[in-house]
Amino acid sequence: MNFTPAAFELSISRLIDAPRQKIFRAWTEPALLVQWWGPHGMTTPECEMDLWVGGQFRTLMRAPDGSEYPTMGVFLEIVAPRRLVFTDAFMPGWVPSGKAFMTAEVVLEEEGGKTRYTARALHWNEEDRQAHEAMGFHDGWGQSLDRLEALVTQGMPD
Amino acid sequence: MNFTPAAFELSISRLIDAPRQKIFRAWTEPALLVQWWGPHGMTTPECEMDLWVGGQFRTLMRAPDGSEYPTMGVFLEIVAPRRLVFTDAFMPGWVPSGKAFMTAEVVLEEEGGKTRYTARALHWNEEDRQAHEAMGFHDGWGQSLDRLEALVTQGMPD
Repeated sequence: MNFTPAAFELSISRLIDAPRQKIFRAWTEPALLVQWWGPHGMTTPECEMDLWVGGQFRTLMRAPDGSEYPTMGVFLEIVAPRRLVFTDAFMPGWVPSGKAFMTAEVVLEEEGGKTRYTARALHWNEEDRQAHEAMGFHDGWGQSLDRLEALVTQGMPD
Repeated sequence: MNFTPAAFELSISRLIDAPRQKIFRAWTEPALLVQWWGPHGMTTPECEMDLWVGGQFRTLMRAPDGSEYPTMGVFLEIVAPRRLVFTDAFMPGWVPSGKAFMTAEVVLEEEGGKTRYTARALHWNEEDRQAHEAMGFHDGWGQSLDRLEALVTQGMPD
């Protein structure tokens, strides 16, 4: 699959030496997700997911200084083991959230016995895209991805 | 079902003397939808729907003076014959649209042999809710509903 970058997109891609089923599980099982979610130094003490379209996806990250970063959204598409889409534009029941900031898409493709991992953050306007970039999108998602890669290549049974 | 009004909501409700299956069909079959969509005086020369979650829902209304009003969105939830949710926040492929203005929910409930029809328009902020009200939400959706009611009670075979 080749992506045409959408307007207002940020993305990150990496070839991971693990089957996509493991990566999909690491994304969709809360007990696994909390082991890698967030940049280096952060922990994720809370994760709840209702893994159906319209279901809640909630995490709480905690920084070393104790400050907390909640995220909250709903799933838009779940196609195991290859595609996951969620957005903060809605709360459960399709109630518009305080702010439609981002829709995230994770795509897992087989590539030469490994998995091409692509995560995209799509925004409604250029201002939000730039704000997300300035918040450290590439470092943050990249460090999360380091931790995810370590988990699926070393820390998770088949 | 009792709704707790969401923030930034506009809604319209009516008891219609027709089974909800007919109303649901009038909402989801383009050949039927074009017969009632839009306020009095408007026509709807075009309607396309891909009736799955994430699928496109597109209409084109035309006023007597020839001016055209396109609408475009995607379906978020389809539960025949009782619930339909769509939003203009996305284009197909979950690409954020130019503007997340509205999410619409149509709920059909059985009530004493008739159908309680409720349509809600949910907005992301008070400014958009007021703009939609000023655009004539109640008259426009009410006149559409008059035409829908006439179709399902008189103009449609069982």
